[in-house]
Amino acid sequence: MNAGSADVGTRPEPQALARAIEKLSARFGERLLTSMAVRDQHAHTTTWLQPQRPDAVVLAAQTADIQSVVRICSEYRIPVIAFGAGTSLEGQVNAPYGGICIDLRDMNRVLEVHADDLDCVVQPGVTRKQLNEYLRDQGLFFPIDPGADASLAGMASTRASGTNAVRYGTMRDNVLALKVVRGDGEIITTATRAKKSSAGYDLTRLFVGAEGTLGIISELTIKLHGIPEMIAAASCSFATVRGACEATILAMQAGISVARIELLNAAQVRACNAYSKLSLPETPLLLLEFHGSEIEVAEQTRKFGEIASECGGGSFEWTTRPEDRTRLWQARHDGYWAVKNLRHGAGIVATDVCVPISRLAECVVETEQDLEASGMLSPIVGHVGDGNFHCALLCDVADAGEIARAEDFQRRLVERAQAMGGTCTGEHGIGQGKQKYLRAELGIEAIDAMRALKSALDPQNIFNPGKIVPGH
Amino acid sequence: MNAGSADVGTRPEPQALARAIEKLSARFGERLLTSMAVRDQHAHTTTWLQPQRPDAVVLAAQTADIQSVVRICSEYRIPVIAFGAGTSLEGQVNAPYGGICIDLRDMNRVLEVHADDLDCVVQPGVTRKQLNEYLRDQGLFFPIDPGADASLAGMASTRASGTNAVRYGTMRDNVLALKVVRGDGEIITTATRAKKSSAGYDLTRLFVGAEGTLGIISELTIKLHGIPEMIAAASCSFATVRGACEATILAMQAGISVARIELLNAAQVRACNAYSKLSLPETPLLLLEFHGSEIEVAEQTRKFGEIASECGGGSFEWTTRPEDRTRLWQARHDGYWAVKNLRHGAGIVATDVCVPISRLAECVVETEQDLEASGMLSPIVGHVGDGNFHCALLCDVADAGEIARAEDFQRRLVERAQAMGGTCTGEHGIGQGKQKYLRAELGIEAIDAMRALKSALDPQNIFNPGKIVPGH
Repeated sequence: MNAGSADVGTRPEPQALARAIEKLSARFGERLLTSMAVRDQHAHTTTWLQPQRPDAVVLAAQTADIQSVVRICSEYRIPVIAFGAGTSLEGQVNAPYGGICIDLRDMNRVLEVHADDLDCVVQPGVTRKQLNEYLRDQGLFFPIDPGADASLAGMASTRASGTNAVRYGTMRDNVLALKVVRGDGEIITTATRAKKSSAGYDLTRLFVGAEGTLGIISELTIKLHGIPEMIAAASCSFATVRGACEATILAMQAGISVARIELLNAAQVRACNAYSKLSLPETPLLLLEFHGSEIEVAEQTRKFGEIASECGGGSFEWTTRPEDRTRLWQARHDGYWAVKNLRHGAGIVATDVCVPISRLAECVVETEQDLEASGMLSPIVGHVGDGNFHCALLCDVADAGEIARAEDFQRRLVERAQAMGGTCTGEHGIGQGKQKYLRAELGIEAIDAMRALKSALDPQNIFNPGKIVPGH
Repeated sequence: MNAGSADVGTRPEPQALARAIEKLSARFGERLLTSMAVRDQHAHTTTWLQPQRPDAVVLAAQTADIQSVVRICSEYRIPVIAFGAGTSLEGQVNAPYGGICIDLRDMNRVLEVHADDLDCVVQPGVTRKQLNEYLRDQGLFFPIDPGADASLAGMASTRASGTNAVRYGTMRDNVLALKVVRGDGEIITTATRAKKSSAGYDLTRLFVGAEGTLGIISELTIKLHGIPEMIAAASCSFATVRGACEATILAMQAGISVARIELLNAAQVRACNAYSKLSLPETPLLLLEFHGSEIEVAEQTRKFGEIASECGGGSFEWTTRPEDRTRLWQARHDGYWAVKNLRHGAGIVATDVCVPISRLAECVVETEQDLEASGMLSPIVGHVGDGNFHCALLCDVADAGEIARAEDFQRRLVERAQAMGGTCTGEHGIGQGKQKYLRAELGIEAIDAMRALKSALDPQNIFNPGKIVPGH
């Protein structure tokens, strides 16, 4: 497997690399790691893309460390790759041209919490679970939940979202401001803590989703929310994917502020039943969550129940008891293991697309037919309120033929989503894996613009080269 | 008055300009206007900035017209300024280096409405009121309301927001995708209709708020919302601004999804009483609106009433009768005329800042003291849920001394907001008037980044030169 069309970088000169590593070693001592095992850990891709290890790893402990690494790499024109929790899905932390990986996991302090303003300031390596543990006593939480316990800077960099996005938005909506180390080691402040601003170009949104290709995030100011008075979970089975999607559309139009609304297709329900010892009807299922006061939650669930029954939904059960909610959502959260359990020893290749919600049923059904026709196994889970769904292809990653068929399937999936007015990725990002789809989606003019932005902010092409922007 | 530090452009060579206008005349005939009256109309600034007229105005009727103008202007290096409804507040449509104004008011068609997806596609000159008229029969609405009946491309370009932003977000959150004519006349498509995407740099958010300096918006895809089942309006007087702000903070923390929450200071209430023949207590007032089902609205108003009374609020009255709602909000909407009524013949200079909500009371109170100390008249109105407030300075615009004092006041206002972690503009934009405040707010590194972005996407500096990015 090659790494797509990422031909926009070159490996550094061996002598330049050696001198840079020498300087980094003098500066960082034992926090510079060059063992093959550590380098391999930092090239973990969680996909079929070949791991490509960096030449060395620096464990950054403070912003000044990031600045030093960037300055040294800039001097010798060495690639710099930021590494958070290593949970990205499209090769974002791979090092196709080698270079220095900055591991940010030790920069994991919550610096400030402003409860009145519903925001906080964190270092890049803080993970979402860690932040929510920290905040719980103050009655606050950070809603974005992509599944993995990703770092917040990593989540910002891939514009992550997940199950709660339908109500609380994505990282795009929940980052207020960033500090970003630029090529000469100086720090760009993108915005203030004000909740909104019209002061110039939206630098915050430019770095959110940039996958570390424009600079290294050294600090984030993010929005928080009050923990809801009540949380209710519900499930509802539908005879068809279309029925489930129609119920979702009607709920959105009616302004029901559902916090999560997840579609599991029949294959995923079967996998969950087998793995989690449940007895859900093996038809498309919606799992929902409602946040609010007791009266609001009762009203939302009542209204959704009416809509679900209009759309051919089965019995609609809801509960506010934490242990029942946990049991219901545990099946969803264990979805990955449930899928893995379907085929012993297989790897899982996760991929996602996002379409206008009016096309979601059609896109999911055609994808199910495609899977059946091509003899591949992949349950489907969707953040249906956003029109975003995931396939989890079970592959023998050592079988080149199988991987090639899986890649063909993915290409058809992306083309199907794009033909319906959708995007090749709703939340995983472009990385290396999806560069080849960007031009068909947005046209050469958008690629030109992205390339111009990359050159403008990273003229040396040292920041995570070979990601997002396709080569010429 | 000069136009700030906008020295990043030059007037075109007279011969080049003459040749460009000749070509435009051949192409557009009577849709090219060069009369002084028309040119003056298109340099309207609604502020103390001196109007600076373009050399000619083209009435664009379709995207191909925008492309033609841009291509001709690019060939001769002539500035191109987009003009929507002319309601911007910081000199965004001024032409400090002359050039061609593209008037987009005739490009006012709603191209597509996708009710299931809650989005629509519009031409740049569609105004928000026109769109809402168009949508009403379908039970849909577009929530962003900056007061003026601005064009949607203009609203996108200044990242407008207004009274509903606390619930529905700003233009940043409500634009899904744009088509933008770039310097060579080709069209950049920034995104698809998918509700979310991680496919590369966020080009949409880069053009939102760019004030026409990176290209001309020729089409917008924007989010819509279902018209709420019920709308309730309410008002509540407070002894102090602090009490009103504390009630707002508690409501936000409790997750009460108030649709509008507007602060009128005592001076604004007095002005409204006088103008609208009301008898509101002349103390700080919150005007609120709640959207939802009957039960939700009742619950939200009940919860807010409890909070208001904890914070020293007076009697909290709410109503769902349209005629009562209208009367209540009419006073707010007539605020501009109420203020104008305070001083016969005076002009109004509107300015805005935005601070973290925890600092809002302090910022408003200090600003009231500043006004009193400097003998100036300006009621204050705030989108208090966002920490954003407006002054409307009553000035004799022919009196240089008074204008100078007003500018001094504005500088102190901006510095006060910035010192509290806020921004020099929450929703009016930078234009010409606020360039001088940008560096203090974000630092030179952010300005460098903005300048690099401008050069990358507009290397000829033809798009609205002299706006946003301060000169060297």
